[in-house]
Amino acid sequence: MENMLYLAPLAGIIALIFAFILTKRIKSMDAGNSRMKEIADAIHQGAMAFLSRQYKTLIVFVLCLIVVFCVVGFVTTGEKSLQPETAIAFAIGAFCSILAGNIGMRVATQANVRTANAAWKSGLNKALGIAFSGGAVMGMSVVGLGLLGLGIVVFIFYGNNSIINGFGLGASSVALFGRVGGGIYTKAADVGADLVGKVEAGIPEDDHRNPAVVADNVGDNVGDVAGMGSDLFESYVGSIIAAIALGASLHIGASGEGMITPLIISAVGIIASIIGTCFVKVKEGGNPQASLNRGTLVASILAIVGAYFVCRLMLPPTFDVTGLTGATITYTSTGVFLATIAGLIVGFFIGKVTEYYTSAAYSPVKQIAKSCETGTATNIISGVATGMGSTAMPIILICIGIIVAYQFAGVYGIALAAVGMLSTTGMVVAVDAYGPISDNAGGIAEMSQLPPEVRKITDQLDSVGNTTAAIGKGFAIGSAGLTALALFTAYTQAVGINIINILDPKVVVGLFIGGMLPFLFSSMTMKAVGRAAGAMIEEVRRQFREIPGILEGKNKPDYARCVDISAKAALHEMVAPSLLAIIVPVAIGLIPFLGKECLAGVLAGTLVTGFLLAIFMANSGGAWDNAKKYIEEGNYGGKGSEAHAAAVNGDTVGDPFKDTSGPSLNILIKLMTIISLVFAPLFL
Amino acid sequence: MENMLYLAPLAGIIALIFAFILTKRIKSMDAGNSRMKEIADAIHQGAMAFLSRQYKTLIVFVLCLIVVFCVVGFVTTGEKSLQPETAIAFAIGAFCSILAGNIGMRVATQANVRTANAAWKSGLNKALGIAFSGGAVMGMSVVGLGLLGLGIVVFIFYGNNSIINGFGLGASSVALFGRVGGGIYTKAADVGADLVGKVEAGIPEDDHRNPAVVADNVGDNVGDVAGMGSDLFESYVGSIIAAIALGASLHIGASGEGMITPLIISAVGIIASIIGTCFVKVKEGGNPQASLNRGTLVASILAIVGAYFVCRLMLPPTFDVTGLTGATITYTSTGVFLATIAGLIVGFFIGKVTEYYTSAAYSPVKQIAKSCETGTATNIISGVATGMGSTAMPIILICIGIIVAYQFAGVYGIALAAVGMLSTTGMVVAVDAYGPISDNAGGIAEMSQLPPEVRKITDQLDSVGNTTAAIGKGFAIGSAGLTALALFTAYTQAVGINIINILDPKVVVGLFIGGMLPFLFSSMTMKAVGRAAGAMIEEVRRQFREIPGILEGKNKPDYARCVDISAKAALHEMVAPSLLAIIVPVAIGLIPFLGKECLAGVLAGTLVTGFLLAIFMANSGGAWDNAKKYIEEGNYGGKGSEAHAAAVNGDTVGDPFKDTSGPSLNILIKLMTIISLVFAPLFL
Repeated sequence: MENMLYLAPLAGIIALIFAFILTKRIKSMDAGNSRMKEIADAIHQGAMAFLSRQYKTLIVFVLCLIVVFCVVGFVTTGEKSLQPETAIAFAIGAFCSILAGNIGMRVATQANVRTANAAWKSGLNKALGIAFSGGAVMGMSVVGLGLLGLGIVVFIFYGNNSIINGFGLGASSVALFGRVGGGIYTKAADVGADLVGKVEAGIPEDDHRNPAVVADNVGDNVGDVAGMGSDLFESYVGSIIAAIALGASLHIGASGEGMITPLIISAVGIIASIIGTCFVKVKEGGNPQASLNRGTLVASILAIVGAYFVCRLMLPPTFDVTGLTGATITYTSTGVFLATIAGLIVGFFIGKVTEYYTSAAYSPVKQIAKSCETGTATNIISGVATGMGSTAMPIILICIGIIVAYQFAGVYGIALAAVGMLSTTGMVVAVDAYGPISDNAGGIAEMSQLPPEVRKITDQLDSVGNTTAAIGKGFAIGSAGLTALALFTAYTQAVGINIINILDPKVVVGLFIGGMLPFLFSSMTMKAVGRAAGAMIEEVRRQFREIPGILEGKNKPDYARCVDISAKAALHEMVAPSLLAIIVPVAIGLIPFLGKECLAGVLAGTLVTGFLLAIFMANSGGAWDNAKKYIEEGNYGGKGSEAHAAAVNGDTVGDPFKDTSGPSLNILIKLMTIISLVFAPLFL
Repeated sequence: MENMLYLAPLAGIIALIFAFILTKRIKSMDAGNSRMKEIADAIHQGAMAFLSRQYKTLIVFVLCLIVVFCVVGFVTTGEKSLQPETAIAFAIGAFCSILAGNIGMRVATQANVRTANAAWKSGLNKALGIAFSGGAVMGMSVVGLGLLGLGIVVFIFYGNNSIINGFGLGASSVALFGRVGGGIYTKAADVGADLVGKVEAGIPEDDHRNPAVVADNVGDNVGDVAGMGSDLFESYVGSIIAAIALGASLHIGASGEGMITPLIISAVGIIASIIGTCFVKVKEGGNPQASLNRGTLVASILAIVGAYFVCRLMLPPTFDVTGLTGATITYTSTGVFLATIAGLIVGFFIGKVTEYYTSAAYSPVKQIAKSCETGTATNIISGVATGMGSTAMPIILICIGIIVAYQFAGVYGIALAAVGMLSTTGMVVAVDAYGPISDNAGGIAEMSQLPPEVRKITDQLDSVGNTTAAIGKGFAIGSAGLTALALFTAYTQAVGINIINILDPKVVVGLFIGGMLPFLFSSMTMKAVGRAAGAMIEEVRRQFREIPGILEGKNKPDYARCVDISAKAALHEMVAPSLLAIIVPVAIGLIPFLGKECLAGVLAGTLVTGFLLAIFMANSGGAWDNAKKYIEEGNYGGKGSEAHAAAVNGDTVGDPFKDTSGPSLNILIKLMTIISLVFAPLFL
């Protein structure tokens, strides 16, 4: 059975080769005229500058944690100890995620200008092809490096799961920087650019005279490419790690089948995603959305078919598992397959529900747009009410998924549902990262003053990108929830708890504290955006004041300084919320009076309210954004009307909701569980 | 021991006699000139009209439930049955709460005009005295009828707790109408009056030419007097019922001491509250806040001293209780006392934390006011962030309370902590209801065009009222949380669950669904306010259009029609959210696949997120309100500035947050647990 372990890294390598081929193809395309190149170069440089600044902080952070692992590892002995080798797995996990983000960002910031140029010179299909290829490089890097890195770590430390868990923590740490730091960065730049540029100076969006315009475009890449990528990288490897841990502790299969199966399902998912990407093509005048949907559908069907054969071939037809109550339950390989696809199907529908609540094609967004007629306050109330109401369906879907998965394969089934949901991550990230590339292409077309018909094509690509971004966010939250639940179960196995009794006051206290953390965390990240945006506003005002002739276009603003300020503020502001996420679980686990049961309560509480708040904030934000766009299309008075002014306010409120606080909660719920899992031996 | 049972109704009767004396005194005061009387009469008539309309719906609702109890009671037999007599307790509970609300509203709407007149003729002290006496009538009616009614029910059905629980459900049903219906009413009227009157017609707040002005003033009484009163009535009797149920099921004391002690603690609390009210006096030029604080402090100290003697005299010095794990634990009467005052102290500090986050004297509100300088969007973000962050301290306080109470007296201690927190309810409601009476007095002074120095005094009283309202809201949420936790424990005892295991997928699913319900419920109530306000806006516009000369003051608007429309819309709009709160627990308990364990998970999930959302929404709303007032005092540009416009938007968003959705969540968490407790026999 162990020789099957080669398949996972192999699939990872295939994904990376595919990414390499796509990259070559993108680079061979023409990057347009010198003005376009210059702007694209500024965005590219800015994005890479943010990444390298992030790396500097991240390396310090990683080194600190490695020291912690080594020190704790060497001073603790016996059962209640950490193994120092965890540091190695941790470092590899962090490195793989960093590398995936770096490759994805590098290529995305080269694909954007080529998309703009293709829209200019060749038309819709070519432009879509380049934008999607850019996204696919990110997608393939995520799953390729995820499975390659994790596969190698599993191979080296086979059977020693507490070390393997370190890989997940490495991925989580990078995701923390990507999502929280990146989320603060992107909104600080966005709000700063809008408030001073659009509102105070009265120049249009994406105007080259705005000093923060490059930072704003960099932010799209930082948040939506690198941030989303690191988030899904974390979910991807986290779900597999949870399944490996549960496969081991439940002794599924005589020779580790329970541990190896999730890796093989993921490997098959990579091949399915690669084939899926080949179906994304559109004719001139065709619908880009339909072609993206086609690709996703092909990938999903292939992943389902593949999972069926993997389960039937890898697992014995029936096998016994010792359940939570101590009783032995018999599961079947078909049951495991059904649990796996339950996750995949739930993920698909959560995406659809998200689309319903955030797309202007359906009534929720239209109603929010209508409420703008009576002013900002009614728009805000309407958006909040819609976002809160939008939590119901995803919760019911996740609950159905949990029940089905558990019914067919117990807690192992829940972990495999997460693996199943994430098996087509390559395709999901590709579709998602396509959005900001198109968005950037539009920005570059605007800043380079290309003919209006070019902007028309990029706008068409971009509007599809908004929908795919919303679906991607729903998927990211859904997968984070299911992954965290699987990791949570693995944690309870690791600390040897069979019962987490809500009637135990420690658990109740844990539930309350855990439930509160997402609120506190969101409060901190929202305030952080406010402060970081404040720094940006000061800088843009200063440039308008001190550099003469910017507004007349006679002098170039200092783009780099804005990029730098945003980056510095983001990395500074992410410290406090990050420490909260890292220290609380470890502290509660170590305090003797509270301990592992209280920590279990904390994790459950955080999972529930974090999941709910994340959906609420992401969907409110998405709905406000599209309500504004719906009004801009000419409804309820169109641009410049009072309804539009109200909608702009709603959109600004929604920015930190949907791009900072909401997505950061995905990280909070996963990071807290993986930290608890890694440090579990200390809480015994 | 049973002869001590007389003490509870006796204390209730004393409270009612005290309320009667206060009422006589208020009625003997002069109600001012004919213009004042006319306006006050309109408010009084409107408030009573709303109540009687509410009663009509309520009676249908109560009759339906009585039929349900009788039918279910007669068709079920054996252990798994409801006793038809539950209907009697239910009806008495509903009747007592209705009567308390009726008396309170009746007197409050007579005290308001007399407060205005006293401010005109006699000055601050006299005005404060009348306003506070009006509040005290409400407070004494709540605790008096609560303890009298519950005392009688306990006396009749002594030892038959599943019947006694019905009293709590009666109280909860009225609270549902009071808080949810009342909350929708008050904000529909407020938003309608403001949007058309202030914004469209440009007339000042509380102007007599606004057709919705009476409805708005009625709304203050409906929401803040009757709504708050029924909410605390529910908590008050709910906490005692939970303690009685746990005292019985844990067999505390040989002759029912565990059941009788909470009633006696509450009886002593009534006497403490009556004495406390006598300390509320202020000299001319003195500080009304200080005198209210003094009264509260006296009541609290007396309640603590009283509770000490009750515990020592009623309970054996040490007694054994069988804990959750089946092991026998020994508690002491001193321990029970400490648990009781833990609740009282936690309640006090939750109020203080609420004050910190919502009063303009502290930095959170000042920062929100500052954020208005950059516009509405930053104001909203800042308020949401503050509200979310403000959940941390109350959660930590409640957790400390739970741990202390449990440490000293197990789950019984948690119920007694709730009883302790609520023992001074008489005083708390008095202080709280004082607010809307002062607010109304100011409105009447304005509408009757009294001299500006009168408005100065009423403004002084009103600004104190804003602080006490915020503290009262914090107290209401805190007590709702603790009461629901105690009822939840009683539910688990009633269905015979010793373990609610989060690792059981039914429980996890329950946690997710329960956690989602407060989001869905808030979404529904917010949308309800929007629709009801829309109906009001239409009506006000219609009157301005169709009744000639309103704006010139030549013709009187049709106040009664606005009152009627608000009432009709509120009662119509509360149906859907109410059904959600009632049907979900019963349905989940009865569905065989889910059942009582899943329901326990649902209740825990609703308790956690409901408590958090309620604090978040109440504090955000309160902070926005006071940030606006802070700007109106001349900060950041004062009235008419852009910052002020942004603050007004924030205040409008905060209205349904703090006065509808937030407080309604108190009802949701309590109603769901008490329904589960009453129907528990069916889930066995």
